[in-house]
Amino acid sequence: MKLDFDCVVVGAGIAGMTAAIYLKRSNLNVLILDNDAPGGLLNKISSIENYPGFTSISGPDLASKIYEQVTNLGIEIRYGKVISINNHQVITDLETINTKKVILAIGRKARKLENTNNLKNVSYCALCDANFYKDKIVAIVGYSNSAMEEALYLSDICKKVIIIGRGKEFKGEDSLADKIRNKENIEVQLECVIKTLDSNNGILNKIITNKGEFEVDGMFIAIGYEPNTEFLKDITKDKGYIIVDSKMKTNIDYIFACGDIIKKDVYQLTTAVGEATTAAINVKKEIDS
Amino acid sequence: MKLDFDCVVVGAGIAGMTAAIYLKRSNLNVLILDNDAPGGLLNKISSIENYPGFTSISGPDLASKIYEQVTNLGIEIRYGKVISINNHQVITDLETINTKKVILAIGRKARKLENTNNLKNVSYCALCDANFYKDKIVAIVGYSNSAMEEALYLSDICKKVIIIGRGKEFKGEDSLADKIRNKENIEVQLECVIKTLDSNNGILNKIITNKGEFEVDGMFIAIGYEPNTEFLKDITKDKGYIIVDSKMKTNIDYIFACGDIIKKDVYQLTTAVGEATTAAINVKKEIDS
Repeated sequence: MKLDFDCVVVGAGIAGMTAAIYLKRSNLNVLILDNDAPGGLLNKISSIENYPGFTSISGPDLASKIYEQVTNLGIEIRYGKVISINNHQVITDLETINTKKVILAIGRKARKLENTNNLKNVSYCALCDANFYKDKIVAIVGYSNSAMEEALYLSDICKKVIIIGRGKEFKGEDSLADKIRNKENIEVQLECVIKTLDSNNGILNKIITNKGEFEVDGMFIAIGYEPNTEFLKDITKDKGYIIVDSKMKTNIDYIFACGDIIKKDVYQLTTAVGEATTAAINVKKEIDS
Repeated sequence: MKLDFDCVVVGAGIAGMTAAIYLKRSNLNVLILDNDAPGGLLNKISSIENYPGFTSISGPDLASKIYEQVTNLGIEIRYGKVISINNHQVITDLETINTKKVILAIGRKARKLENTNNLKNVSYCALCDANFYKDKIVAIVGYSNSAMEEALYLSDICKKVIIIGRGKEFKGEDSLADKIRNKENIEVQLECVIKTLDSNNGILNKIITNKGEFEVDGMFIAIGYEPNTEFLKDITKDKGYIIVDSKMKTNIDYIFACGDIIKKDVYQLTTAVGEATTAAINVKKEIDS
């Protein structure tokens, strides 16, 4: 079998790009595959303040800085949606690629809120869509770090932001919760469960909850993430998250994984870059041995 | 016992500062202790090209950016050399501090080359001392990534750089080895063992090896690192490196560790920030529970 690459990295988020940087600097022939713009979930983060090296940076800005490192090294990025990986072959919707090793860095997607599919004014990305709601009233559903970050971002653009969270209290950094409480135009509704979404011609206009009814011009959702690994049939998973060992190796000999797609305790940019480095260094070790 | 802090982070390198950033953003009362300038080993790295977010940055510049994050958050840093840690008390040469938790991020020190103690023109930091050898001939002892990085940095300042390495080939990134080979003023001597260091009045002037004699104006050493954990008597270690579990916890209930001081496979900035985040998040979880 003719090998096209030493390693194919699936996913051009922060984990995938970091792994590729380490692989390329080890002189390996590496390809990054993604079916979206480089940056992954970074592209949906309005503000990052806990990544060492930047007091405050937007997700897309950090993505573009890392992408610059990738292109400076001459790393090839191809568009492709991976359909299956079998016997050292990565099969996308466009081609079949032969490779010694694979690193899966496919991240995870925002979890969908039920019964919102047909609503036009529902968004999963404040950074992408906040400007449609300038000086309007929006709800943000969720009570985790990402919901708080989205609420803060929205509060600078919208007239009013209503946080609708099921939990008793925020689940995330206290410093974010403090900022939320100091914002006059953020209303916090915790232990709040949505009963009905009233809409007119596909436009949501009222959220009916156990804590009252809220008239809104739009709704943002930040209720967590879920992995999308159904296409990886032979890989050992737990609730869709890929199981790896301390070398970031899956149960399949030539496949490694890192970043938000693996089963672990801490899902942060810092942990993703650490895992990506570990995966890349172990790929290099195996190829050299 | 009056507790002065929720968590004392020992070490103000990239791991310690990252842990402190996460702790502080979780609203914990945190102190960083160090007996040197913030930045740790970063302050001795001339050029970093594999930390995601920066195409190329000097170690001191990255250190100062992270230090800016630390000071922006109002995190307290105190000078102090830790003498012992016992029963939730961190004892330095200046004071005794009571704390709920401790994160050890003390990094490691450059390994010393024997018989060089009395030589004035021997250095362990090209970034610090290269300018003393402008347009002169220097040797760099070592053959790892750090030796190669030091050699490249020196080659831009010195007339000639002689790499003296014991190994058969370079042990590190191939991209660095390629750069070395492309530098006309770097001479590479591998499988090269030092026999005698000739000096006059404490000034090294000739290195005698199995591969010949080399007249030099100075010598830099990059033969690896070693941990300095002798003062931590009750902590489980392996060759001086602290053993931690996947939560970055040591065998002592309230003490965590992260970064270059722990026993692990990959010693990189990326892995250090990942471990620091994991340590901080687990400290927060334990304090809240």
